[in-house]
Amino acid sequence: MPLGEFELIDRWFRRPSRDAPGVILGIGDDAALLRVPDGHELVAAIDTIVAGRHFLPDAKAHAIGHQALAVNLSDLAAMGAKPAWALLALTLPQVEEAWLGQFARGWFDLADREGVALVGGDTTRGPLTLSVQVLGWVETGTALRRAGARPGDRLVVTGTLGDAAAGLSLARGRVVGAAGSAQAHLRRRFEYPEPRLAFGRLARGVASAAMDLSDGLAGDAPKLAAASAVAAHICLERLPLSAALLEVADAAQAHHWALCGGEDYELLLAVPPAGLARLGDLAAQCGLHLTDIGECRAGEGVTWSMDGRPLGRAPAGFDHFR
Amino acid sequence: MPLGEFELIDRWFRRPSRDAPGVILGIGDDAALLRVPDGHELVAAIDTIVAGRHFLPDAKAHAIGHQALAVNLSDLAAMGAKPAWALLALTLPQVEEAWLGQFARGWFDLADREGVALVGGDTTRGPLTLSVQVLGWVETGTALRRAGARPGDRLVVTGTLGDAAAGLSLARGRVVGAAGSAQAHLRRRFEYPEPRLAFGRLARGVASAAMDLSDGLAGDAPKLAAASAVAAHICLERLPLSAALLEVADAAQAHHWALCGGEDYELLLAVPPAGLARLGDLAAQCGLHLTDIGECRAGEGVTWSMDGRPLGRAPAGFDHFR
Repeated sequence: MPLGEFELIDRWFRRPSRDAPGVILGIGDDAALLRVPDGHELVAAIDTIVAGRHFLPDAKAHAIGHQALAVNLSDLAAMGAKPAWALLALTLPQVEEAWLGQFARGWFDLADREGVALVGGDTTRGPLTLSVQVLGWVETGTALRRAGARPGDRLVVTGTLGDAAAGLSLARGRVVGAAGSAQAHLRRRFEYPEPRLAFGRLARGVASAAMDLSDGLAGDAPKLAAASAVAAHICLERLPLSAALLEVADAAQAHHWALCGGEDYELLLAVPPAGLARLGDLAAQCGLHLTDIGECRAGEGVTWSMDGRPLGRAPAGFDHFR
Repeated sequence: MPLGEFELIDRWFRRPSRDAPGVILGIGDDAALLRVPDGHELVAAIDTIVAGRHFLPDAKAHAIGHQALAVNLSDLAAMGAKPAWALLALTLPQVEEAWLGQFARGWFDLADREGVALVGGDTTRGPLTLSVQVLGWVETGTALRRAGARPGDRLVVTGTLGDAAAGLSLARGRVVGAAGSAQAHLRRRFEYPEPRLAFGRLARGVASAAMDLSDGLAGDAPKLAAASAVAAHICLERLPLSAALLEVADAAQAHHWALCGGEDYELLLAVPPAGLARLGDLAAQCGLHLTDIGECRAGEGVTWSMDGRPLGRAPAGFDHFR
């Protein structure tokens, strides 16, 4: 007998929510009832991942479960918010028990680690699509925004860039000849993006602006600059590239992935020069390396240089509809 | 030149949000920043509608925009909540300007009427899927839940049942011979479901439990009974059927649609007998007719009768995965 919609939710997704902070009423009613702590603002984001677009049709269900939640948590990380609750809209072509079990495990492995309670959702039959809403909070007035960078601020990124795009290329069988360990590292970077939540919270009050890198630096840096009403200058030779990336790609390809590949979910932050060392220390506390890749200037738009030589035109950013 | 993701959001979905209550930061950052008023609880729901499942592939974009928001607002209506904010995850096969313009108009026609600010979203390329998250609030402790009905309570529904299923059948060209006005009424009931928000808020403190009817009474009534730990008995001859429905269907078909069709988005409520007249008055204030269709009893499960004769087995409810 095929498993129905309600058994599906009960079996894989309903958990006791009475211990989760702020959950008055979780899965099972028309909507969830939640309590935001006094003195805090609510932070809300939504993101959808689609088969064939954000993950390969044959991707492991465990990785998809992780990814669906991780890309949303990354938005909260970029605000310096503490995630609390999530709602999951699951559109499935059919119910496959093994797939759902693995998906739920991938979801809860991350959710439990970050203290995120699943408080509601929706299941529908259709092409495989996962839409997730995450809710969290920040102490009133402390959220990190894209606006706030000022001329003279340094631009920094966490971790390394371009790994996820290389990992996707590997998963598609398009790159060959590299060592197995490099390949495994890059594929993992694509399949298991890490939201920089702990660092995002610590960066509040030190960074002047922040956003997460989901579309690639070339597409995302102009958004931070525009929101802050500053110009940005980025030095390509400073981009942090992993040893694994440089093992599978020449410099031109590596830079292309770092700029245009997307899906890295690292943070791009602006920080006044006086706060740079402190921000680096906070990143180190979270096991992250911070790289200074350029600066904010008066004006607008983003300029790029390589070894001091200006680039004639901007690299193209990722856009779902181009 | 094809329109990109960011122009798409700017052109059709970004609006000044500074006047919307509680919006500190709306569309354009990594997440929205929102303020829930003191003394209130947050109410959150998510729902997805998929082409070919919830609407026909050739449905009018204006109706899809309405429906995507309406089915979510219906969840808030069932909690007695006041909707405040929405996030929209739009998965589109391609960008069609005329389609998007109409979709946005359908969305905002309803959103503006109900005071719902669009504060965030996400656009992705893929099979046409709309996933919506709505957020609202209720005064602390006043939400209407599915749990709360007690033996002796009457079971009532708003409006008429089965119209949406008949409208879908008409849209598919499966019913012929009825008057044009009946057909138009039923199609409109399918294409433009009305969330019962005003009545939901008024029903708090009078009704003992409530839920919205999205899967059909046969599927939904057992959920309210189970949540309240009561049995429910429903008299089929009392089901409110519209004149338009009875014009396109015989009694058996009309009952089948009323019980199993789904997508009506009327409210099912339990109310102590002493509150029944008062609840009817409140419904009338909202232009709604309330029908007493049965009662809650000690025990569990749902029993059905027709003209006093018990039905041997329960009608089958709608389930996306059966």
